Amino acid sequence: MLVSALLTSVGINSGLCVLFFTLYSILKKQPSNYDVYIPRLLVDGTSKRISHFNLERLIPSPGWVRRAWNLSEEELLSTSGLDAVVFMRIITFSLKVFLVAGIIGIFVLLPVNCTGDQLQDIDLVDISNNSLDVFSISNVNSGSKRLWAHFCAVYIVTIFVCYLLYYEYKYVSSKRIAYFHSSKPQPHQFTILVRGIPVSVGSSISDSIQSFFTEYHPSTYLSHMVVRRTNKLRALINDAKKLYRRIIHLQSSPTQNKYRPGNCFGLFGRKVDIVDQYEKKLEDIQENVRLGQSDVSLAGEEIPAAFVSFTSRYGAAIAFHLRQSINPIQWVTEQAPEPNDVYWPFFSSSFMRRWICKLVVVVACILLTILFLIPVVFVQGLTNLSQLEVLFPFLKSILTITFVSEVITGYLPSLILMLFLKMVPPIMELLSSIQGYISHSGIEKSACDKVLWFTIWNIFFATAFSGSVLYQVSIVLDPRNIPAKLAVAVPAQASFFIAYVVTSGWTSTASELFRLVPFLWSLMRKPCTRSTDDDLEVPSIPYHRDIPRLLFFGLLGITYFFLAPLILPFLLLYFCFGYIVYRNQFINVYAPKYETAGKFWPIVHNSMIFSLVLMHAIAVGIFTLKKLSLATTLIFPLPVLTLLFNEYCRKRFLPIFTAYSAETLIKKDRDDQNDAAMAEFFDKLVTAYQDPALMPIQLSANPDSLNSPLLSST
Amino acid sequence: MLVSALLTSVGINSGLCVLFFTLYSILKKQPSNYDVYIPRLLVDGTSKRISHFNLERLIPSPGWVRRAWNLSEEELLSTSGLDAVVFMRIITFSLKVFLVAGIIGIFVLLPVNCTGDQLQDIDLVDISNNSLDVFSISNVNSGSKRLWAHFCAVYIVTIFVCYLLYYEYKYVSSKRIAYFHSSKPQPHQFTILVRGIPVSVGSSISDSIQSFFTEYHPSTYLSHMVVRRTNKLRALINDAKKLYRRIIHLQSSPTQNKYRPGNCFGLFGRKVDIVDQYEKKLEDIQENVRLGQSDVSLAGEEIPAAFVSFTSRYGAAIAFHLRQSINPIQWVTEQAPEPNDVYWPFFSSSFMRRWICKLVVVVACILLTILFLIPVVFVQGLTNLSQLEVLFPFLKSILTITFVSEVITGYLPSLILMLFLKMVPPIMELLSSIQGYISHSGIEKSACDKVLWFTIWNIFFATAFSGSVLYQVSIVLDPRNIPAKLAVAVPAQASFFIAYVVTSGWTSTASELFRLVPFLWSLMRKPCTRSTDDDLEVPSIPYHRDIPRLLFFGLLGITYFFLAPLILPFLLLYFCFGYIVYRNQFINVYAPKYETAGKFWPIVHNSMIFSLVLMHAIAVGIFTLKKLSLATTLIFPLPVLTLLFNEYCRKRFLPIFTAYSAETLIKKDRDDQNDAAMAEFFDKLVTAYQDPALMPIQLSANPDSLNSPLLSST
Repeated sequence: MLVSALLTSVGINSGLCVLFFTLYSILKKQPSNYDVYIPRLLVDGTSKRISHFNLERLIPSPGWVRRAWNLSEEELLSTSGLDAVVFMRIITFSLKVFLVAGIIGIFVLLPVNCTGDQLQDIDLVDISNNSLDVFSISNVNSGSKRLWAHFCAVYIVTIFVCYLLYYEYKYVSSKRIAYFHSSKPQPHQFTILVRGIPVSVGSSISDSIQSFFTEYHPSTYLSHMVVRRTNKLRALINDAKKLYRRIIHLQSSPTQNKYRPGNCFGLFGRKVDIVDQYEKKLEDIQENVRLGQSDVSLAGEEIPAAFVSFTSRYGAAIAFHLRQSINPIQWVTEQAPEPNDVYWPFFSSSFMRRWICKLVVVVACILLTILFLIPVVFVQGLTNLSQLEVLFPFLKSILTITFVSEVITGYLPSLILMLFLKMVPPIMELLSSIQGYISHSGIEKSACDKVLWFTIWNIFFATAFSGSVLYQVSIVLDPRNIPAKLAVAVPAQASFFIAYVVTSGWTSTASELFRLVPFLWSLMRKPCTRSTDDDLEVPSIPYHRDIPRLLFFGLLGITYFFLAPLILPFLLLYFCFGYIVYRNQFINVYAPKYETAGKFWPIVHNSMIFSLVLMHAIAVGIFTLKKLSLATTLIFPLPVLTLLFNEYCRKRFLPIFTAYSAETLIKKDRDDQNDAAMAEFFDKLVTAYQDPALMPIQLSANPDSLNSPLLSST
Repeated sequence: MLVSALLTSVGINSGLCVLFFTLYSILKKQPSNYDVYIPRLLVDGTSKRISHFNLERLIPSPGWVRRAWNLSEEELLSTSGLDAVVFMRIITFSLKVFLVAGIIGIFVLLPVNCTGDQLQDIDLVDISNNSLDVFSISNVNSGSKRLWAHFCAVYIVTIFVCYLLYYEYKYVSSKRIAYFHSSKPQPHQFTILVRGIPVSVGSSISDSIQSFFTEYHPSTYLSHMVVRRTNKLRALINDAKKLYRRIIHLQSSPTQNKYRPGNCFGLFGRKVDIVDQYEKKLEDIQENVRLGQSDVSLAGEEIPAAFVSFTSRYGAAIAFHLRQSINPIQWVTEQAPEPNDVYWPFFSSSFMRRWICKLVVVVACILLTILFLIPVVFVQGLTNLSQLEVLFPFLKSILTITFVSEVITGYLPSLILMLFLKMVPPIMELLSSIQGYISHSGIEKSACDKVLWFTIWNIFFATAFSGSVLYQVSIVLDPRNIPAKLAVAVPAQASFFIAYVVTSGWTSTASELFRLVPFLWSLMRKPCTRSTDDDLEVPSIPYHRDIPRLLFFGLLGITYFFLAPLILPFLLLYFCFGYIVYRNQFINVYAPKYETAGKFWPIVHNSMIFSLVLMHAIAVGIFTLKKLSLATTLIFPLPVLTLLFNEYCRKRFLPIFTAYSAETLIKKDRDDQNDAAMAEFFDKLVTAYQDPALMPIQLSANPDSLNSPLLSST
């Protein structure tokens, strides 16, 4: 790719970003868009839709940037929880890393690269027609002593990243423990989920649980709640809700608002009939729901799984940590999620079934990865224009136009990839939910992992290898030659990934701020429904979409910083944008749906360690290729030490993220012992894990009851 | 290798076996050898050395075979513990597998192989000059429909082995639980080992433990015993014991027995001086020991590790399963071993130190594996005589003698390998002890694993690959081509492994029975020391030497049964010998030193699964080589299903072998609650984990005190 193509891409994207930022500044101030841009404030009640018009509303202002900048970590913690803090720390962590790497890269490595003359055909005067390779390590002469600069950079950055990783792991885990200590008693702290409950003939699941836990945990057992398969009931309730909304909409449409059905005629008569019809239907469904909830057989069969609550956190922890039954696949225990975090639909209980589901998901992931190679290969074809001309000769005339070819090589490939990538997170989330996780947080965490590895494999490796060995029939995976192949393939894709950072990174941040999809959706929906602020659902941030993206850019930065330091300024800009934009969104848009108390951090840590080791492998390959065998040898201790460091961190910090220690739990239990509010809390705990589908719903066609417990069962 | 070479080897080894068996029958009856052949019975008191001579003592008799045969599993369990039962079940398991495989192999596959004509130069009349390859799958024509017989055999044997594995896992785990239920209260059930105890300035380790456990386990905490570094003290005690033995020997030598020092003159005078000297020295040392035991600072520093005992098994289990401290590398708990199973010398406590030791051991294992390739390659040179002739031309004249060449190709290679392999178990045991295991059983279990994988790698793979690619500079490990390479290399070594079974297997069993090394040792020692039956130490069976050997033969059988069914009769004979010999040794020789309650079985299970998958990989390669692509495709589900089966077993049975369930523990605790003997047991428990070096020793030069508590501190 030429410098000019990159500049085209930067130009287009900078324009888009400025456009989005400006539009956001204006649109955000329009009361009609409050539900898109500040839903959180609306629901909290801190902002109201005030419709009086003034000129200020049309002038873009940067006030929101200042507000986002000024937000302290304590405020973020109190309003959005520890997960948001961890999310923001990914960005600040990356900023720190790439600031240091950037200084080294731009002021040391870039001059070294430029002054090399390995690539002969350089024309330093007409820089815009140069290949970007001039700025990369490819331009340094083979065997040159200058390569030691790169060698030192690799060492310095590795040590710096490891130091930061250690510090951050320590910080996040201390935050996690502090969060637990300061938390109020919460149902999930006292509860475990038990699956694989054996039932003897003639007794119910409930009896079985009761007798088991009173037998073996007599002093701490409190209550239990058997899980039921309520798919049918849930479908009925959804139907009821839909009908209810439609009725509300019909009733609230201007012409119908003040007239009761009896007073109407003509065209309105028909409408009245519809409302009547709907109301009758709704009553029928509600009757069915009520019947189902009262009659056990209709409510769906009992599943041999239950939420079992204890009178102390320590009691619950004991039941969770110790294998309960002689048969290891019976009475399987796990920590319960928060009550509103439970994912009811795919509630599978049998050991074998969950196991088979897991296998199916693994196979599905592999298939998806293979299928995804098709667009990647196509995109790679676009960056190699000459190949495209060979394949489609009729395009030749168009491709000779400079601007077209620059758009095609600089902008289009990453855009196409980005669009395809957009589909991955929802698919992975679906797969994770099939896998048998019982909580939304578990599903998102697993999806986050899947999306991350999918991205790394399908974007990084597939791009690197298919770009340079597109015409090879198969990519032979020979473990000993991986560094050599990486050393050839990865630097060759430097320009693509710089463009990718600009296109995918910048645009995604801008569109995150602008909330393009919700905005368009709200525009389309507005004429059809009467939306009230009470009806508004505050979205939660899709961690499984955004964390892998941040981590992938981190991987790009770490692997490319010594190959093509030119990527670093673009990355730094991306993370700066991200810093402001996500803070702004946490203030205005997203509300936490659940709290994992920092459980996403181990994913970040692992991804960074992988990036470092990958970078070392590439360094080994590069130094071999550049015939600097001493450097090759001296790089080898680095991945070993990094992996040992990782192993140490796994031992030192990871256990804190899986479960709390006896010390912590007992202290917390003792703090609560003298609290008078605990009796009330235990009363509530007994019913905390009731399936929402089994809770009474109240939907009446009376608009006064809009604040009904309807939302309690969403 | 030719059939005649194999016959030579079989001849030599059969002769050796008959010789050993006959000698054993005779020598066993000589009272002077009782300490070699029936030490267990001697110590138990069921056999006494009766010196009257009769002719029967010189006639070999097979009575011991009948006694060994008649031993029931219950008897074995009560006399030698569950580990011995598990050990014998490895043999019966193998017998069952190879009986079925043998029937299929000999009556179906062998005729199919023989009637092929892929190898043209066959002379069916002069069978002894034939290559053994005639009986192997190599002789079946490529693409022949007859290969489906092998295909079916692979499927049948895999299913049969998996069925048996499931059944055995279930049986052993039920035995394990039954064993626990029937066991008396034992110190290690109530105790955990705590390492990484943080000590605040000004307080002792003991205070720290006391305050932590009374704070967090007030209802179940009983007592603790801080571990000390007693290496110096232990060395002193060993010196004392050596001196003591020497004095005893001097005093008990015939001329000194009845005379007190004062009555002697001349030559005897010198002797008296020596005894006097020794006695003085001994008293000095004993004084030192006593000083050391009373003075803490001399006894060696305290280590921040301790055995903490609880008043119930469940209490100990809770403390073991739950992470105790906020910092995961402090208060690290693990199950305590039996008091006499504790391995005191290498007691390292710090987390980092143990971790570094582990790394060192890993590196040492890798180095050992690489160094061991040298003898393997040399041995392989011997089986290819032509190569040897090229390397050492002067040997040509000797090698042309038929018998010499047959001994060299048929007998020598396996013998050399066997001798080298003899050194491996002790080395691996040493490495495992460095690794930081705290019990003899843990060390043996880990050494067992190490020896097994070492054997598989260094004997199976190194033989297979270096035998056929000796002159290749490096063996390229290309994962995709492993089946193809295995298919070429493994069948080529069939004759070597048949000879290996005969040499290594048969001879090792015979020498196990004959106890060659202890017998020679006893012969040499007898004139020097006065051995008393009380002084006698009953050996324990070295599981880390014998289990890997049995499992390796299992691996050979499973991988070769369809390649060269001729191996099966020899293997069956080996396991039959083993069945009788080991049962006999359990009755007469070995006493259990510790009881892991069946923890060796998972190693057996994993090894068998690995053998199956390896067999499948070879089958894939063979069917590809033989151009039966449909069979190749149809084999693929087999390893996948086998691994899934293994995964299921890991979930279903493995947890039973790591820890007992809450149900089991609570039941057992309740059984004991009303037992009056428990108070006494708890009194003993408090001092059960006292370091033997810190216990009072009583060594006086008075021969009357031979039954002193000396042995209590061994």
